[in-house]
Amino acid sequence: MKTIRGRDYRGGMKVSELVGSFETMGLQASELWKAVQVAKAMDKECDTVFLAFTSNMASSGLRETIAQLCRERKVDAVITGAGSIEEDIMKSWGGFGLGTFDEDDAKLNAKGTNRIGNILVHNRSYLKLEKFLKGYFTKKYAASKGKPLAPHEIFRELGGMLNDKGSFLYWCSRNGIPVFCPAPTDGAFGLQTFFFKQDHPGFAIDVTGDQPKLANMVLTAKKTGAIILGGGFAKHHTIGVNLLRGGLDYAVYVSTATEFDGSLSGARTKEAVSWGKIRKGAATAYVHCDASIALPLLVAGMDC
Amino acid sequence: MKTIRGRDYRGGMKVSELVGSFETMGLQASELWKAVQVAKAMDKECDTVFLAFTSNMASSGLRETIAQLCRERKVDAVITGAGSIEEDIMKSWGGFGLGTFDEDDAKLNAKGTNRIGNILVHNRSYLKLEKFLKGYFTKKYAASKGKPLAPHEIFRELGGMLNDKGSFLYWCSRNGIPVFCPAPTDGAFGLQTFFFKQDHPGFAIDVTGDQPKLANMVLTAKKTGAIILGGGFAKHHTIGVNLLRGGLDYAVYVSTATEFDGSLSGARTKEAVSWGKIRKGAATAYVHCDASIALPLLVAGMDC
Amino acid sequence: MKTIRGRDYRGGMKVSELVGSFETMGLQASELWKAVQVAKAMDKECDTVFLAFTSNMASSGLRETIAQLCRERKVDAVITGAGSIEEDIMKSWGGFGLGTFDEDDAKLNAKGTNRIGNILVHNRSYLKLEKFLKGYFTKKYAASKGKPLAPHEIFRELGGMLNDKGSFLYWCSRNGIPVFCPAPTDGAFGLQTFFFKQDHPGFAIDVTGDQPKLANMVLTAKKTGAIILGGGFAKHHTIGVNLLRGGLDYAVYVSTATEFDGSLSGARTKEAVSWGKIRKGAATAYVHCDASIALPLLVAGMDC
Amino acid sequence: MKTIRGRDYRGGMKVSELVGSFETMGLQASELWKAVQVAKAMDKECDTVFLAFTSNMASSGLRETIAQLCRERKVDAVITGAGSIEEDIMKSWGGFGLGTFDEDDAKLNAKGTNRIGNILVHNRSYLKLEKFLKGYFTKKYAASKGKPLAPHEIFRELGGMLNDKGSFLYWCSRNGIPVFCPAPTDGAFGLQTFFFKQDHPGFAIDVTGDQPKLANMVLTAKKTGAIILGGGFAKHHTIGVNLLRGGLDYAVYVSTATEFDGSLSGARTKEAVSWGKIRKGAATAYVHCDASIALPLLVAGMDC
Repeated sequence: MKTIRGRDYRGGMKVSELVGSFETMGLQASELWKAVQVAKAMDKECDTVFLAFTSNMASSGLRETIAQLCRERKVDAVITGAGSIEEDIMKSWGGFGLGTFDEDDAKLNAKGTNRIGNILVHNRSYLKLEKFLKGYFTKKYAASKGKPLAPHEIFRELGGMLNDKGSFLYWCSRNGIPVFCPAPTDGAFGLQTFFFKQDHPGFAIDVTGDQPKLANMVLTAKKTGAIILGGGFAKHHTIGVNLLRGGLDYAVYVSTATEFDGSLSGARTKEAVSWGKIRKGAATAYVHCDASIALPLLVAGMDC
Repeated sequence: MKTIRGRDYRGGMKVSELVGSFETMGLQASELWKAVQVAKAMDKECDTVFLAFTSNMASSGLRETIAQLCRERKVDAVITGAGSIEEDIMKSWGGFGLGTFDEDDAKLNAKGTNRIGNILVHNRSYLKLEKFLKGYFTKKYAASKGKPLAPHEIFRELGGMLNDKGSFLYWCSRNGIPVFCPAPTDGAFGLQTFFFKQDHPGFAIDVTGDQPKLANMVLTAKKTGAIILGGGFAKHHTIGVNLLRGGLDYAVYVSTATEFDGSLSGARTKEAVSWGKIRKGAATAYVHCDASIALPLLVAGMDC
Repeated sequence: MKTIRGRDYRGGMKVSELVGSFETMGLQASELWKAVQVAKAMDKECDTVFLAFTSNMASSGLRETIAQLCRERKVDAVITGAGSIEEDIMKSWGGFGLGTFDEDDAKLNAKGTNRIGNILVHNRSYLKLEKFLKGYFTKKYAASKGKPLAPHEIFRELGGMLNDKGSFLYWCSRNGIPVFCPAPTDGAFGLQTFFFKQDHPGFAIDVTGDQPKLANMVLTAKKTGAIILGGGFAKHHTIGVNLLRGGLDYAVYVSTATEFDGSLSGARTKEAVSWGKIRKGAATAYVHCDASIALPLLVAGMDC
Repeated sequence: MKTIRGRDYRGGMKVSELVGSFETMGLQASELWKAVQVAKAMDKECDTVFLAFTSNMASSGLRETIAQLCRERKVDAVITGAGSIEEDIMKSWGGFGLGTFDEDDAKLNAKGTNRIGNILVHNRSYLKLEKFLKGYFTKKYAASKGKPLAPHEIFRELGGMLNDKGSFLYWCSRNGIPVFCPAPTDGAFGLQTFFFKQDHPGFAIDVTGDQPKLANMVLTAKKTGAIILGGGFAKHHTIGVNLLRGGLDYAVYVSTATEFDGSLSGARTKEAVSWGKIRKGAATAYVHCDASIALPLLVAGMDC
């Protein structure tokens, strides 16, 4: 049994040293240290690593950290929400600002500013997004000749149109990392598909169009792993597809949700074992922490 | 200012009396009392009331309470996840059992049993679901002649095939209440669409097919309201579409998530005001409680 | 295995029927139903039942429900914080009001109003408390002739001075239910002991003065049980003293805290088994819910 | 408005650089960055800085980080629980080990091992503690000639008997930093006071004995600040005593509790403003994170 033991902390320490010290810290610090070990093993052993995250991660500066993981090909597939797609695009033009959790929301609304926790986005960004997506949909719809579009193809093409090295779509597109989203009509992205469909009733997005490619990645892999930040369908879609192969071999969950309400968001890795979404005996870690703090430590910790 | 004051509680009291006593209880009890008032006003004033919930609610006995709301036409549209659809169908055949949060998940897996918090489902239910959906997809695909399907049409037809008065799909189908799901390929439902597509590559589900009908409900309503249980896309899709009309006029959130991570799941009603997803000055309530306890009280409280 | 099954809810239902329906609801509703069964068995089987709670419970209307339990002798000892004592006293004179969680706290401060979540108390109440306690300490100090006071004796005497049937101190005093508080110098109560001590340096409160009586209750009981609302020292002191007899035989925890931080507040009943604070094989239940909603249901459910 | 922007993370980065990057990360990372700024200003501007923490912090490796703060005289007073005192003492002899949150607690109990989250302590440590405290109480009681003991005096003397530079009591004792505990009879420490009192009925611990010294620190300071980790009475006692001077000038809260239950543990800094426990306009930060991760970053961040 490892002895619980902490230490002094200094600004000049290397992050690897800080993360290393978490091994014997106990509580969530030790769970984070374990997550680093699982992620390193996953990186070494798995042919297919999934990265799942909710859209608030893309709203935050984690977007650039996610881009790092995609640029460095640490992940092989991304599963996320429409909100992440639209915010990654908008951020490639700038414009997200730091606010507080206690803003006067009615005042913000009057100024055309929208709040995501302590992050602010102006309507200008959404107007630019509208123009960008309208242009894309117009061309794409004409070229597709009535064939329904698959979400991952749309995102690959949109990523190709971006010119920001802080964008994960940019890197996914360049590095052949598919971005899957089973709910592309949610979010501002979805409002744009609605507006476009009003004028082009034949416009269609076929969500089953993502399934063969996603399933194939799972079925042909020798070992699969997943880093899952937050909950919702991004989390479920990632573990759910791994049912097809008897479960993930490696899994790291970073979450702020609790298991007591029976939600998938709060479910721990052991619950997924009952389903065969995570393999019995898989290497797993669960870190109960806001990802804006945990992911930078995880990513730095993997780089040792 | 109301004076904080509690009272004796008795088994023989009416639930309406218990809920009434929450007015001056303080803490979340008072928030629940407020939610009852908002829901009653919503019921009276709104032409369109949305009910959004995550799939763990359908896993629990809340499924029958949701069916009550649909049978009594207290709600005009349902927005939920694929998990809710598949579980509502499977439950119409029975088979969900009560377990504990501390089961041995590897043992459960060996017995073909899957865990959702303290709720257990056997693989038999999923095998029956597979057969049921395969039969439906086969007929539907043949009839549709290559036209992509819209999620709400699928769910209406599936609801029509059920014969269980505890099913919300059953009542939605009979009462003309559309069920929207922006992510139909998640969950076991999604695995079945994948299996079917393997043999029928032309099979397609167009998620934009839900949008005109959903948007129309929002755009033509004089007043809209929403009861939102849990988070994720069910919550966001509900408030997001109300952007089209300047926001919901009434909103009740019941949630176990916190706002500190900036997630939509934990966002309070005031955050939605910044976006115009809830109207400034709207009647709103936020209850921080597991819905399995809060919804029965809310529904009984509305019935006074 | 019990089948998960919900039902319709009506305002006219009896609370006992609502709570009974929670048996097969799943999620926290089923945990609450289990808590009712444990509490009923505890009431029947235990010679000594502890009730522990944090001071926010006394701030809320639960104060009167706690008074009910003490009036009906459902509990044999109370363990709580100084805040509960002082608020129970102040409430016997009235004056706590319902506010919101989003008050402007600087404005409240300017008006002499203090906030506890969505509960408000004016400084007037504290001024009256100051006078009341000063009078009591003056007499008591004179009578005690330098002997340090034991907390439970102070609280018994204070309870005897109250004239409010909604007060738990009132009933504890009349019914011979000792009220223990290992931290009597916290809270406004503590500020008053400090002010008094400034003029009477010999004034002393000996917290070891509670221990023989408390320990004796545990050591002489055939079976002990505890209903524990919230966390902190009230929770720990209750389970900790039961170490002396090899652990509680029955335990109900109602909490909003999580176990991930290793805090005693979030610790589940199983952790206490490792310590022998709860006996192996004890009947236990854990309800993750705000007590302002859960306790009324628990108390009504016990009354069947 | 600062632009939200993240970055790459590397193991070789300095911790100060990582923490610096949190300024524009958004979500809790930005709140942590703010906490660092408040703590640095507090360190510079305040004559009296309080450090409050719950006993699970002392169970973890944070004990040594807390010792660092006391050794470097970054704090002027410590307020904590009996559990922290006893664990700091026991750890000076070694013996706390890393386990998991999912241990079989009945098996642990059979082996004489106690669990605190994912931290394990054997009964051997408690037996040694018993002997140590019995010896101390025997001598002290003889010397005190019936005068009740003040908690901070006991802890100062116990700290002086330790010989471990990882102990905060050791450094508090040497550096003249008083350690206050308003609930010294809770925890294993309290069991020992009970055992001793059985043979020495005159033994007494007067908790009002801490009050003049604590109040004096608050009343004579030009500016006060507090770093508060977790909730419970450690948190309340710290902010409560600052009422005497119109409130803290600087406050950092690190917590995992939520405000919805009205508990002091979950109360945010703004609630304390209503009471005058934190001054209007004070520099404050609230980090929603397990302290085992947050405190190392905070301490390293202060060292820049």
